[in-house]
Amino acid sequence: MEKKRVAVVGYGNIGKFTVEAIEASCDMEIAGIVRRNINDIPEEIKKYKVVSDIKELEGVDVAILATPTRKVEEYAKEILAMGINTADSYDIHSGITQLRANLDKVAKENGSVAIISAGWDPGSDSVVRTLMEAAAPKGITYTNFGPGMSMGHTVAVKAIEGVKAALSMTIPVGTGIHRRMVYIEVKEGYKFEEVAKAIKADAYFVNDETHVMQVECVDNLLDMGHGVMMCRKGVSGKTQNQLFEFNMRINNPALTAQMLVNAARATFRQNAGCYTLPEVPVIDLLPGDREEWIAHLV
Amino acid sequence: MEKKRVAVVGYGNIGKFTVEAIEASCDMEIAGIVRRNINDIPEEIKKYKVVSDIKELEGVDVAILATPTRKVEEYAKEILAMGINTADSYDIHSGITQLRANLDKVAKENGSVAIISAGWDPGSDSVVRTLMEAAAPKGITYTNFGPGMSMGHTVAVKAIEGVKAALSMTIPVGTGIHRRMVYIEVKEGYKFEEVAKAIKADAYFVNDETHVMQVECVDNLLDMGHGVMMCRKGVSGKTQNQLFEFNMRINNPALTAQMLVNAARATFRQNAGCYTLPEVPVIDLLPGDREEWIAHLV
Repeated sequence: MEKKRVAVVGYGNIGKFTVEAIEASCDMEIAGIVRRNINDIPEEIKKYKVVSDIKELEGVDVAILATPTRKVEEYAKEILAMGINTADSYDIHSGITQLRANLDKVAKENGSVAIISAGWDPGSDSVVRTLMEAAAPKGITYTNFGPGMSMGHTVAVKAIEGVKAALSMTIPVGTGIHRRMVYIEVKEGYKFEEVAKAIKADAYFVNDETHVMQVECVDNLLDMGHGVMMCRKGVSGKTQNQLFEFNMRINNPALTAQMLVNAARATFRQNAGCYTLPEVPVIDLLPGDREEWIAHLV
Repeated sequence: MEKKRVAVVGYGNIGKFTVEAIEASCDMEIAGIVRRNINDIPEEIKKYKVVSDIKELEGVDVAILATPTRKVEEYAKEILAMGINTADSYDIHSGITQLRANLDKVAKENGSVAIISAGWDPGSDSVVRTLMEAAAPKGITYTNFGPGMSMGHTVAVKAIEGVKAALSMTIPVGTGIHRRMVYIEVKEGYKFEEVAKAIKADAYFVNDETHVMQVECVDNLLDMGHGVMMCRKGVSGKTQNQLFEFNMRINNPALTAQMLVNAARATFRQNAGCYTLPEVPVIDLLPGDREEWIAHLV
C-alpha cells in the first residue's frame, strides 16, 4: 500500500499519541514533526525529522494539527494554502461553523481538504449524535462526559492566578449535567480560599457545581482515562419511546489521536473544502478497499 | 421547504411505518403507494393514490422499497432505470456487495442514486460498527441482537411444512451468540415433534441453540420491540483496552422505516451510483440546512 506522508504539528500529549497511531497504521508514515523547541527532542522521536516550520519537510501529504485548539485556524490556513490537507481536533463547539467557513475558503482556493473538530467530542461523538438524531427525529439527546479529566477545564484552572498545578475532573450526574472536581496546588503567597473563589467564578465553571480541593501533588492524581454516555429517547416516524445509548471508556488522547489519523486519511477521499466529521462518510475513516469493509461491516 | 415526492413500494409492516415516517417528515410527501392487490386498500391510506405499478404515479423523486428483501434487486433495477432514486433495507448480509455492484451499474447509466441495506442492521448499526472499527482499528466487535422478534427467522419457520403460524425470538447470550426461541402453531395432521425437528435442521437455525415451543395462539405473543447491544474492545494507536458500546431498544419496523426515509432523503445529496449507509455522510440523513445541524450536533 502506498503510504501517505504525515506531518505532526505539535508534540504535546495529543502529538505523542498521534505519532503512535501513525506508526500503528498500515497506510501512513511520518514525514516529520513540527514543534517550537527543536533543541529538546524526546528520545522516542529522534528517528524522525523534527523541524520548527512545516516548510522544512518534504513531500507532506497531510498535516495533523496537534496544537492548542486556539492555534488551529492560524496553522490550518497556512498549511492548506500550501496545498497540504489538514486534520485537527478543534474543540470549541461554538466556534466550529465559523472555523469551517474560514478554512473552506482557503481549502477551495488551494485545492486542499481540511477535516476539523475530528477528535471524539467534537468528533466521533458528533457522528453518533447525528445518527441518533436521524434515527429518532423528535426527542432529546443527552451527552454525559466522564468520569475523566477535562483538558479544557484543566487549562482554564491553570490560567488562574495563584494556581501552581491543576486537574479538573468531569463527573457526570445525568441528563447532560456535570459536576466539576478541581484539584490544585497553590503557589506560595496565595490563599487557597481566594484562588478557589476565582476558579468558581471563571466562565468555565460558573454554571456547574464546582468543588475545589487543595492537594499536595496533582501529578499523583493524573489518569488519562475518560468516558462518555450519550443517550437519546425519541420518536421514529410516529412511534414513541425509541431508546439509543452510546457509551465508551477510553484513554482520551489515544482516541483523539486515532480519530485525527482517521480524519487525515479521509481527507484524500473528499473534494477540496472543509468538513466536520458528520459530513464525511464513516467508511472513509478506514484504510484500504471500500468493498472489503462493506462485506465485513455492513 | 420544497417537498420530495416519495413512492412507497409495498405495504406490509415496513410499508405502513414508512408512510407514517413520511407523514411525520418536514421535507417529503407521498406520491403514492404501489402494491400488488389494489382492491384491498386499508383505511389509513385511502387518501393516497394506490397503484399496482409505479409507472402510474406522477412526479416521483424517490421510491422506498418496502418489499420482501429478495424482491429488492428486481424493483430497484426497474425504478433506477426510470431515473428515480431508491432506498431499501435489503438485509441478506452476504449479498450486499453483489447487490451494490449490480445497482451501481444501473444507477450510473441512468443518473439515479440507490442507497441499499438502509434499515438498522444492516443500516444504522453498520455506521456504528464502522465508526467503532475506525476508533479502535485492532479488536473485536460483537453485535448482540434482541430480545426481539426476528423477521427473517420467523419467515423461515413459516415456510416449513406443518407450521400454521410462527414467531422466532432472538435472545442475546453475549459475544454475538444468540438463542432462538421459536413459538409455533401446528397445522392439523402434523406432529409437533417432527415439525420442531425440521425447524432445528433448517439453515437458519442449525448453528444456534434453538428451542421450539407449541402455543395456542402465536398472535398473542407478538411484540415488535427489538434491541441491539454492540460492543468493541480494541486498540487506538498503541493504547489497549478502549471500550465502546452501542445499545438500543426500539420498535423494529418503526426504526427501519425511519432509516429508509432518511436514506431516501440522502439519495438527493449523492452522485449517481449505489451506496451502503457507511458510504453516506450521516449529516445527509437529516433534512434542511447542513450548517444549522453542524452548529447543533458537532
